[in-house]
Amino acid sequence: MASLLDPRLQRAFAPQRIAVVGATEDRNKVGGRPLHYLQRFGFQGAVYPINPKRATVQDLAAYPSLDAVPETPDVAIVAVGQDAVPGVIDQCAARGVGSAIVMSSGFGETGSDGVARQHALVAQARRLGIRLIGPNAQGVANFSTGAVMNFSTMFMEVAPQDGPVAIVSQSGAASVMPYAMLRERGVGVRYLVASGNDADASVCELALVAAADPAIRVVLMYIESLNDPAMLAEVARLAAARGAAVVALKSGRSAHGAKAAASHTGAIVNDDVVVDAFFERHGIWRAQDVHGLINAIELYLTVPPRPAERLVVMSHSGAVGVLCADAAESLGLPLAELGEPVVKALAGIMPSFATAQNPVDLTASLMTQGGMYADTLGALAADPQADMFLVGVPVAGEGYDVPGMARDTARFAATRGKPTAVSAPQASVRQAFRDAGVPVFVHETDAVDALHQWSRHGTLQQQAAARTAAASAVSRMPALPAGDAPLLSEADSLALLAGAGIPTAPYRLCRNLDEAVAAWQALGPHVVVKACSAQIPHKSEHGLVFLDVQTAQQAAEAWTACAERVAAMGVPLDGVIVAQRVRGRREFALGVRQDPLFGTVVMVSDGGKYVEALRDFVVLLHPFSEADVIAKLRTLRIAPILAGVRGEAPVDLDVVARTAVALGALAAAHPQAIASIDLNPLIVGDAGQGGWAVDAVIERQEGIHANP
Amino acid sequence: MASLLDPRLQRAFAPQRIAVVGATEDRNKVGGRPLHYLQRFGFQGAVYPINPKRATVQDLAAYPSLDAVPETPDVAIVAVGQDAVPGVIDQCAARGVGSAIVMSSGFGETGSDGVARQHALVAQARRLGIRLIGPNAQGVANFSTGAVMNFSTMFMEVAPQDGPVAIVSQSGAASVMPYAMLRERGVGVRYLVASGNDADASVCELALVAAADPAIRVVLMYIESLNDPAMLAEVARLAAARGAAVVALKSGRSAHGAKAAASHTGAIVNDDVVVDAFFERHGIWRAQDVHGLINAIELYLTVPPRPAERLVVMSHSGAVGVLCADAAESLGLPLAELGEPVVKALAGIMPSFATAQNPVDLTASLMTQGGMYADTLGALAADPQADMFLVGVPVAGEGYDVPGMARDTARFAATRGKPTAVSAPQASVRQAFRDAGVPVFVHETDAVDALHQWSRHGTLQQQAAARTAAASAVSRMPALPAGDAPLLSEADSLALLAGAGIPTAPYRLCRNLDEAVAAWQALGPHVVVKACSAQIPHKSEHGLVFLDVQTAQQAAEAWTACAERVAAMGVPLDGVIVAQRVRGRREFALGVRQDPLFGTVVMVSDGGKYVEALRDFVVLLHPFSEADVIAKLRTLRIAPILAGVRGEAPVDLDVVARTAVALGALAAAHPQAIASIDLNPLIVGDAGQGGWAVDAVIERQEGIHANP
Repeated sequence: MASLLDPRLQRAFAPQRIAVVGATEDRNKVGGRPLHYLQRFGFQGAVYPINPKRATVQDLAAYPSLDAVPETPDVAIVAVGQDAVPGVIDQCAARGVGSAIVMSSGFGETGSDGVARQHALVAQARRLGIRLIGPNAQGVANFSTGAVMNFSTMFMEVAPQDGPVAIVSQSGAASVMPYAMLRERGVGVRYLVASGNDADASVCELALVAAADPAIRVVLMYIESLNDPAMLAEVARLAAARGAAVVALKSGRSAHGAKAAASHTGAIVNDDVVVDAFFERHGIWRAQDVHGLINAIELYLTVPPRPAERLVVMSHSGAVGVLCADAAESLGLPLAELGEPVVKALAGIMPSFATAQNPVDLTASLMTQGGMYADTLGALAADPQADMFLVGVPVAGEGYDVPGMARDTARFAATRGKPTAVSAPQASVRQAFRDAGVPVFVHETDAVDALHQWSRHGTLQQQAAARTAAASAVSRMPALPAGDAPLLSEADSLALLAGAGIPTAPYRLCRNLDEAVAAWQALGPHVVVKACSAQIPHKSEHGLVFLDVQTAQQAAEAWTACAERVAAMGVPLDGVIVAQRVRGRREFALGVRQDPLFGTVVMVSDGGKYVEALRDFVVLLHPFSEADVIAKLRTLRIAPILAGVRGEAPVDLDVVARTAVALGALAAAHPQAIASIDLNPLIVGDAGQGGWAVDAVIERQEGIHANP
Repeated sequence: MASLLDPRLQRAFAPQRIAVVGATEDRNKVGGRPLHYLQRFGFQGAVYPINPKRATVQDLAAYPSLDAVPETPDVAIVAVGQDAVPGVIDQCAARGVGSAIVMSSGFGETGSDGVARQHALVAQARRLGIRLIGPNAQGVANFSTGAVMNFSTMFMEVAPQDGPVAIVSQSGAASVMPYAMLRERGVGVRYLVASGNDADASVCELALVAAADPAIRVVLMYIESLNDPAMLAEVARLAAARGAAVVALKSGRSAHGAKAAASHTGAIVNDDVVVDAFFERHGIWRAQDVHGLINAIELYLTVPPRPAERLVVMSHSGAVGVLCADAAESLGLPLAELGEPVVKALAGIMPSFATAQNPVDLTASLMTQGGMYADTLGALAADPQADMFLVGVPVAGEGYDVPGMARDTARFAATRGKPTAVSAPQASVRQAFRDAGVPVFVHETDAVDALHQWSRHGTLQQQAAARTAAASAVSRMPALPAGDAPLLSEADSLALLAGAGIPTAPYRLCRNLDEAVAAWQALGPHVVVKACSAQIPHKSEHGLVFLDVQTAQQAAEAWTACAERVAAMGVPLDGVIVAQRVRGRREFALGVRQDPLFGTVVMVSDGGKYVEALRDFVVLLHPFSEADVIAKLRTLRIAPILAGVRGEAPVDLDVVARTAVALGALAAAHPQAIASIDLNPLIVGDAGQGGWAVDAVIERQEGIHANP
């Protein structure tokens, strides 16, 4: 997998020699800023300003062209007019420069002419073996070496400091916003990359370069348009493998949300929910906004995320405890039940009216009994139930030993290796804890959110690693029947599902009246009779479904009615399906479709008439396990009903899980032949009773209507 | 209503003369802090330290007792041991002191002895005509006069400044946390009140005193236990009447959440959802945490909240626009569609590749074309669709005219009178805008949240005012039949509902077999037969319900079975109900109960078997209108289905609304007689078809089983 890393881009991130083509004297211009920054932030390598009109630029010896520089640059910054860019790329090739950071604008972001220019540029670069970052890129900054090839104004204003964080973004603005917020918290950032039009090296590929630096512990990403998911999965894998993590903000939820309003079942699976499923699958934390992108970073930098369940809250205010409990419960993060020995130990430390329960209330006695703080932490640490700690300091200052508390907390966290967060609304108190190396938050909600994210992200990473390790079992899947209708007939669809191991209600395809009567005799007395034609997917609307047929006579009449009505419609009849009427507890709707980027996507939804209106569904990316499905089904709104309420037995989720896995495997086995499958309903019984697919619509890939 | 304001408490908030009983030299002790603060923060009135052992305390002349002070204090701070407190209260009475801020602890917060002490103290104070704040109170601070009768350490650390905000809290910690966060934002705070045990003057009554100060524009409250809702309603009314607002954080959601898991329908209405309904009804914004308590305050201080719908977002980054659109849509806050004239005007101002759409993207051209910023704001202001403005400044500094942008924004906001927020991750940029008087936020989500809260709060306030203005029509409600069973029989229940104007399915109570057959003839052919006995609320469980009785013979058999089975149970049979079987589109469950604090509470829920598991319900506090119910029903998860999907007609919500209003009025007319009513199901047809109550259980108030 390491082959995904392009050494040309790696050199661009850690160059020895940098050419700046279009270098200018004015440090507030795109071609002037990087030159200013390279000097200001102490870049020790060679810098070659290219400007045919000047002998020096910003006090550096200038060169008329790339040909003229004394040594081959590792990377060229391109800050010339759009029309001059192709010429510069040619020069790069001639001089052996492996990559170019193209800051010039006027490409894909400016309409159809620009798009054409961009396509040509990328084709040219690929032909010449040059990697492009951009065009329209704010650039790449590496604060470990001062190689700041990035023109953002932000570094003029907010002083950089090297650190274990990389920010890789499609947008310049969205790269510097989290930077400013992290720097205000005192967190150092090594890489700041804004890829602009993302035309050649994608934001994901650039993130991979950052993730490959062993000093990087957290990769923060801003993505507006994800077009390289396999590369992103590799970023997450590479990071997790060495205890680092990827947190990504994928924006544009709202536009996608509108798309999701589409009516038909399969269409419920919109891009954005697939992104959610993809991130979750690969152990990437999806932030909801810029604040969410950075909020938990200090925790990640003290301890790599890992699965953890129980939180202990300690404060010298009861109100803080209540607020933390509220915040934790709203996230489904339980407070630890303290063990008997710990409660006893606490009782010996705290005054009688203080609370030796979780949340632990030290009361105002903290002011008068300085030792109580460290003693209480020590007692709590002995509890195996306590996975994470949150100390609320609503007020402190004169009368409090704040530096002592900070030291005690830092020592505690370091000794125990468990994440410990402090919330404090006072900047001075936060600073004292921060100076001691303790992650701090302004208020309880941010602290609880961060601890929740840290532990949940640990779980996602662990699951992703387990999934990668276990090779997915590939079972033989049946082939599609030949044909050229866009849809398979119901009989063909049911046969294909059955062949894939999906249980279907017993049925027979009857070509004539006698067969229908025989089928009723074999499957009755309660049967359903339906016309079968690949050209009539919505049978009920045409009066072609007869529910609860109970006699031979009714079966014969239904067969005849189907035959006559289909004939009247002037389409061929494939036969009439006589199916056993099955009864179950609950209906589900399942769907699968091929996503051009994410592969085979399976959707499992609560069933019934209102499946679109109620939008109670989960999305899974093939391959996945039955356990994955069961876990997802527990997040449905109807989950309590599925588990059994009012004395009812649980619903048979195993058959739902098996069906979802088989559906994914079937579609994945025929990516060129199956466009989508709509299995609705799957009628499911009580646990152990199984379930039955009773109808399905299988859509062939357009233009591919023969057996592949 | 002004009579709710107690002049003794008003004097305590703005005293001329303050006695400190238990005054000490050590400024880090409870009895020393206020004395220190009164001098430090420039209190100009008289301060009388009471300390029999010293001639001076903290350089002020001390007095041996309250008797000895030269003039009557307006308020006494009590900072003595718990046992000495009653004596001090006696002295207060003797000296004519109207109120006491009791900082002493050892009362209700410390167990049963303390609770007894507290009860005695309150009784004593009431007898003597003295109002108590506390005990265990952190106290009252008034930064407009320096009357800081509050011992929090926070004011040693974070410098106060008078301003139009009051913070009134049951908890000391929860009062100073929002204070610290507001001060960090540069917002001034006048009152800081922490009421401690809330034993006499409640947090709500203290908030009323603060709200009565015409300089106060926002009252922030922290409440753990709300026991004085009528007073809180008055706080909200008083504030709104002069363009001020109340934002409250009611904590303890999680514990209440557990309670809400109770099984039976009525029990779904737990305290916390009633608090939600109460706040909403009275135009109080319920904050979810301390951050939410303060986040929107700067907006409130520039323009009082009012209903507003459409948001315009402007930035020089496209990504910021996307992030704002995501955040706004997740709150249901639409972005304004810019009108044709505005789009044209923008096109004349902005470069061709910039976006003259909402969100408006000024692009990096902002750096080179300084005038564009003000021109764009001016063009946008002309759009009547634009109610609120958000300017995103992801980065600025060298090369940008930040002070100019700040000035332009402030002028724009002042001229237009529309709320205008700026988000900027750089502290320096925020400061520039703040200095110009513009509300600023660190990131887009906080800004969008604040604008959403501002407008939604305006709507709530407007609705609350309209509700207060419209006197609720009182209709005659039928009386309960006499009886002493805890529950009414179904026949009595249905008759009572019908008397209250609630439609019921046609039925007859049949005392013998002949009546049953006659009832079938009148109401059949499809009827339901059910035994009627006040002692058997769960009829189905005892085989006493016969669904879809279709013949006279079946009706007679059902009657006989009911009679025999009830006789076998040894309980009296009130008769057998023969009811027309009604069919509708959807079932609802309605409930009403008397809440000891909040009055008559009505719940309307999606119906069916899984009503508890799915928890899709709304809560209304009597009195309310049918329009209130309809608006609430639109927030249900099943709302799309109620509105009609898949070509279905809408469900008849009018009958649901009428029934809910009647149910509330019925219960409210008999608060001493009706404990609760469980109406389940109300079967409802398509719009215009009406609905029918088919079963109800009415529970009498305990111990009151006769007609009141």
